[in-house]
Amino acid sequence: MRSVWRSLIGPPLRAQEVSKEQITPVEGLSALSLDALTSVAYGPEAILAVLAVAGAGALSLVLPITVVIVLLLATLVFSYRQVIDAYPGGGGSYAVCRANFRGRVKLLAAAALIVDYTLTVAVSIAAGVGMLASAFPGLIALTVPICLCILAVITVLNLRGLGDTARAFLLPTVVFIGGLLAVIAVGLLHPLAAGSVRPYRPALPGLETVGLLLLLKAFSAGCSALTGVEAIANGVPLFRPPRALRAKRTELLLGNILAVMLLGLAVLADRWRIGPQSEETVLSQVMAAAVGRNWAYYLLSLTITLVLALAANTAFGGLPVLAGLLAKDNYLPHLFALRDDRQVFAYGVCTLTVLSGVLLVAVNGQTLALIPLYAIGVFTSFTLAQTGLVRHWRRIRPRHWRHRAVINGIGACVTATASGIFLVSKFTEGAWVVTLAIPLLIVLFARIHSYYQRTAHALGLDMPPGRPCRRDTLVVVPVTDVSRLTQHAIGMALSISDRVVAVTVVTSGAETSPGRAEELREQWARWDPGVPLHVLETDYASVARPVVTYIDEFARRHDEQLVVLIPIVLPDRLRYSLLHNHLDLVLAEELRGRPDVIVARVPMHLP
Amino acid sequence: MRSVWRSLIGPPLRAQEVSKEQITPVEGLSALSLDALTSVAYGPEAILAVLAVAGAGALSLVLPITVVIVLLLATLVFSYRQVIDAYPGGGGSYAVCRANFRGRVKLLAAAALIVDYTLTVAVSIAAGVGMLASAFPGLIALTVPICLCILAVITVLNLRGLGDTARAFLLPTVVFIGGLLAVIAVGLLHPLAAGSVRPYRPALPGLETVGLLLLLKAFSAGCSALTGVEAIANGVPLFRPPRALRAKRTELLLGNILAVMLLGLAVLADRWRIGPQSEETVLSQVMAAAVGRNWAYYLLSLTITLVLALAANTAFGGLPVLAGLLAKDNYLPHLFALRDDRQVFAYGVCTLTVLSGVLLVAVNGQTLALIPLYAIGVFTSFTLAQTGLVRHWRRIRPRHWRHRAVINGIGACVTATASGIFLVSKFTEGAWVVTLAIPLLIVLFARIHSYYQRTAHALGLDMPPGRPCRRDTLVVVPVTDVSRLTQHAIGMALSISDRVVAVTVVTSGAETSPGRAEELREQWARWDPGVPLHVLETDYASVARPVVTYIDEFARRHDEQLVVLIPIVLPDRLRYSLLHNHLDLVLAEELRGRPDVIVARVPMHLP
Repeated sequence: MRSVWRSLIGPPLRAQEVSKEQITPVEGLSALSLDALTSVAYGPEAILAVLAVAGAGALSLVLPITVVIVLLLATLVFSYRQVIDAYPGGGGSYAVCRANFRGRVKLLAAAALIVDYTLTVAVSIAAGVGMLASAFPGLIALTVPICLCILAVITVLNLRGLGDTARAFLLPTVVFIGGLLAVIAVGLLHPLAAGSVRPYRPALPGLETVGLLLLLKAFSAGCSALTGVEAIANGVPLFRPPRALRAKRTELLLGNILAVMLLGLAVLADRWRIGPQSEETVLSQVMAAAVGRNWAYYLLSLTITLVLALAANTAFGGLPVLAGLLAKDNYLPHLFALRDDRQVFAYGVCTLTVLSGVLLVAVNGQTLALIPLYAIGVFTSFTLAQTGLVRHWRRIRPRHWRHRAVINGIGACVTATASGIFLVSKFTEGAWVVTLAIPLLIVLFARIHSYYQRTAHALGLDMPPGRPCRRDTLVVVPVTDVSRLTQHAIGMALSISDRVVAVTVVTSGAETSPGRAEELREQWARWDPGVPLHVLETDYASVARPVVTYIDEFARRHDEQLVVLIPIVLPDRLRYSLLHNHLDLVLAEELRGRPDVIVARVPMHLP
Repeated sequence: MRSVWRSLIGPPLRAQEVSKEQITPVEGLSALSLDALTSVAYGPEAILAVLAVAGAGALSLVLPITVVIVLLLATLVFSYRQVIDAYPGGGGSYAVCRANFRGRVKLLAAAALIVDYTLTVAVSIAAGVGMLASAFPGLIALTVPICLCILAVITVLNLRGLGDTARAFLLPTVVFIGGLLAVIAVGLLHPLAAGSVRPYRPALPGLETVGLLLLLKAFSAGCSALTGVEAIANGVPLFRPPRALRAKRTELLLGNILAVMLLGLAVLADRWRIGPQSEETVLSQVMAAAVGRNWAYYLLSLTITLVLALAANTAFGGLPVLAGLLAKDNYLPHLFALRDDRQVFAYGVCTLTVLSGVLLVAVNGQTLALIPLYAIGVFTSFTLAQTGLVRHWRRIRPRHWRHRAVINGIGACVTATASGIFLVSKFTEGAWVVTLAIPLLIVLFARIHSYYQRTAHALGLDMPPGRPCRRDTLVVVPVTDVSRLTQHAIGMALSISDRVVAVTVVTSGAETSPGRAEELREQWARWDPGVPLHVLETDYASVARPVVTYIDEFARRHDEQLVVLIPIVLPDRLRYSLLHNHLDLVLAEELRGRPDVIVARVPMHLP
C-alpha cells in the first residue's frame, strides 16, 4: 500500500533538491497559466452571445469590446508584475491587502481567492469533460466519474510537485499555443480561406439597438477571459530563483500571448461574420474557416479539450501557497503550512481536491451550473489587489508613483464594475452561493485566528515560563496475569520509579470463577517481583473504571506524579490485533484528558 | 451522542442486578421460541406444496406426515431437555460435541449454528416484511430499508438485555399463541364452519402416484417447522436461576404448543381439503375458514406478520452465548467473551447484526433467495447434538441409558436424513453457499485457536517468568518552543528520571528563518531549565524522522530504558484539535512497534 503510494508520489525530497520541483517561465505557462489561456475558448463566444441578442449587425462590436478587454488585461498584467515585485512571498491580492489595509479586507481577498480556486478546478474539469462528452455522447452518463478521475490524476501530479506537473503538461500547452497562433496567422494572411464559413443567421429578430447596458453586459461577459491572470502572482514561491524575475517574465509572456489570441480571434470573427451557433463553438468555427476540417483541426480540437481540463491545475498552483500563508498568519490550521516529504503543501492540495470534488458531484459535472458562480471571486480579488496597489504607491512613493496609481485606480474601477455586473446579473442563477460562502470563510478565518491568540496566551508564548518542577512518581501497572508480558512491564516501571504498584480487576460476575482473586494473589506471591499487587473487585462488567477510580482516589490523597503503564501484546501481523483484549484502548480513552497522569503503552512483540 | 445512546441502552448493570435481564419460562417463549412457533406459518404449507405435485388426492397425506414430524419434535424436545441438564452453560450442540467428541466435530457444530443463526435473523425479518409488503404493495420498494430498521430495533433491544426484549415481545407472542389455539379449537369444535373454503383445484394434472422420494421430500420440507427448537438449550445462561429447570420447562412448553398447533392445522387442512394457493397462504385459509374474515382474522394476521419478524430474536438469544463460549475456548477473539455495561455479550450481538444485515442487503430482502440456505445448519446441529448424546449415555450410563440412547440414535438418523435431503435437493439453488461457509468458519476457528496457543506459549503463561529487570532511564522530550507546555513536559520528565534531554527539529527549508536554531538555543539558555537542548537539523520536511534517528542512535550506543514524552495541547473543544500540529501522531506512529521505547503524550489542558 505504502510503497504503491510512494512510487506514485516519488521519494522524499531534500530542501536543496526542491528546485527540481520549481518551475521556469515556460513551465509556468503550462502549470499556472492554462486557466487564463484557455479562456480564449469561451471569452469571445461569451461576448458574441450577448451581442447576438441585438441582432447580426451588433456582432461587429466584438472588435472594440475585445480591444477594451485587452487594455484591461494590460492593466492587470502591469499590476500583477508590481505585485510580484512587492510581495515575492506569493499570495497575490491577499499579500497586497495584508500590507496595505487594516482589518478584515485581507480576509475578504483570501476568501474570494479560495472560492475562485475551487470553482476554477470544478469549471475547468467540467468544461473539458463536457467537450469530450459532446464528441462522444456515449460518455455523457459517465461525466461525474470521468471528472473525478481527472481530478485524481491532477491531484497526484501536484502531490509529486509542480515541476513534474508542469513538464507533464508542457506538450499539450505548446501544441495549444502554437496551433492557435498558427490558426490566427493563417487566417490573417489568407483572408480568402473563409470559404467554408456559414454566415451567422440570428434565430430571433434582433433588437437592432445596442444600449449601454448591453454593451456593459457584453464587456463583463468577455472579462471571463481574464480569469487566471492572477495565478502567477499568487504562486511566486513555486518558481526557481530568482523567483520574482521569472514570475514577472511568465506574467508578461502570458499577457502577450493572451492579448494576441484574443485580438486575433476577434478580428477573424468580425471579418468572417462568425456568430454564436448552438451546435458549434465560435473558436471551432474560426479554426475550421482558417485551416479547414482536416487532421490539424481535429488535433487542435482535441488539444483544446485536454488543456481545458488541465487548466484546473492553475488553482493547484495558487491555493496551497495561499493556504500556507494564511496558516502562518494563524488564519487557517497550521497544518496547511507544513510541507510534506516532497516539500509540497499537501494539506492544501488535498483540501482543494475534496472541495472541488464535492462541488463536481453536487452539480453533477455540469459546467452550466457553475458558470454563474465563477469570475465573481477573481474579479473581487482583482479589485482588491489594484486598490491595495494604489495605497502601496501612495505609501512608498517611488518614481512615477502617480502614474502607476492612476493606472491601478482605473483598473480597480473597471474590475469593480465588472464584478458588480456579474453579481447582479447572475445573483438568482447561483451567484448568491458565493455571497454566502465568502462571509462564512471570513468568519472561519477570524475564529481560527482568535483561537490561536488565546492558545498562545495560555501557553505563555509571550513570556518566559517558570522552572519545571519535579515530583515523586508512582507507576501503576494494570495486569491480568503473571506472564512474561507482566515481567516486561514491571521491569519498565521499575526503571522509571522505585514506587510501583500492579493492579488487577476481578469482576464478581456469575461466570468468573470466584477464586480468581485468590489464585492471582497466590501466583503473585510465589513470583515475588518486589512490587505489590492490588486486586480491585467490581460488580460491573467494565474493567477500566475500577482502575480509573483507583487512580483518582490516589491522586486525591497524594501529590505525586502518576504514570500508568499498560502492557500490550504487539502481534506480528496487524490482523491478529483483533484477537487481543484492548484494555489499553478502553483505559487510554477513560484516562484521556487527565493532564496529571502520563499514560503509556508498554508493547511486547510476539516472536 | 453518548447520552442518547445511554438512554437507549439503559444504565450500567451490576452483576447482581443482571437477574432483571434474565428470563422466566414464559418470557423464554417470547425471547427464544418465536422462531420455532412461527414456523406453523410455513411448515404445513411446505408439506402441502410438495404433495400437490402428486395431485389433489395426495394432499390427505399431510396428516400422517405431520404426525411423524411431531414424533420427531418430541424426540428433539426430549433430547434438548437432556442437553440442558447435562450442559447448563449453554451452547447446545457445541457443548455436547465438545464433551463427547474429539477433534473438530465441535467446530462443525459451532459453524453450523452460526450459519443457522445468521440465516434465522435474515429469513425471519425478510418473511415478516414480505407479508407486510404483500398487504401494502406500496412498501415493496422500501423492503430493504424496512428490514434494516427492524434489525436495528431488535439489536438495540438486545443490547439493553434479553429481559427487556422478552417483555417487549410478550404481548404479540401471547396474542399469537392464544389466537392460533383459539382458531384450532373453533375449527375442531364447529366442523361446519368451513363454508367459506375454496376447495383446492390443482393447476397441473397431478401424477397421482406418491413415490417414496416425494414422501421424503414432503417430510423434509415440513421439518422446517422444527427450526428454532434448539435455541433454548443454546441460551440456558440467559434464564433466571435455577436456570436448567426453567429452561427445561420452557422447552417442554414450546414442544407442547408447537405440537398442538401443527397437528391441529394438519387436521383442519385435511378436513377442509385446503391446498396451496398462489394468492393466499394455507394458514390464512384455515384461519378464514374457522373464524371468517372479521376483525379477529385481521388482528391475528397482523400479529403473525409481527411475530415472524420478531422471531429473528431467537438468534440473538443464541449466537452471543455461543460466541462467548467459543471465545473462552480460544476459538473466537476474546472480545466475544466480554460482557458490556449491561452484562450483554455486545460484540456477539453486533456481529450478528452486521452479518445478517449484509445478508439482507445481498439478497435484497427476498425470503425466497434465503430459503434454500436455511435449515441445513440447524439440522446438522440436531444430528450432532443427538449423536453426541448417544455417546454421552454410553459414557456415563445412568438408569435407562439404553432406552435414551436408542431414542437419540433414531432421532439422529432421521435428522441426518432430513439434512441430506435438504442439501441434495437445494444444492444448486443456493445451499452450496452453506457448504462453503461452514468449512471456512471451521478453518477460521482453528487458526484463531492455534494463534492463541502460540501467544500463550510466547507470553510464558505456562511457566513462571523471571524477575523483572530494572535499567537506567533516559527521557527524551521533543519540543518546539519555550512555553508553559514545554515547562510542564520537562517537569514530568524530571519526575521520571534525572537524565532528560530536550530535542528540537529545525528544517533547513527555504522558508524557515535561518536563525531559528540559534534563536531557540539562546531562549533555552536564558530559561535554563536544567536540561540540555539538542537541535537536530534536517534537510527533509519530516520532523518526526530526525527524532526517530536520534533515538535509534542513542539506543544503539547505550543500554538504557528510553522514554519519549511528547507534549501536546488538549483544547477545550474537540474540533479545535485540528488546529494543533500533530507531531505526536506522526511521532507515535513512527515509534510504534519499538518495544524498547516507552512513548507517552504529556497533555496540557488549555484553560
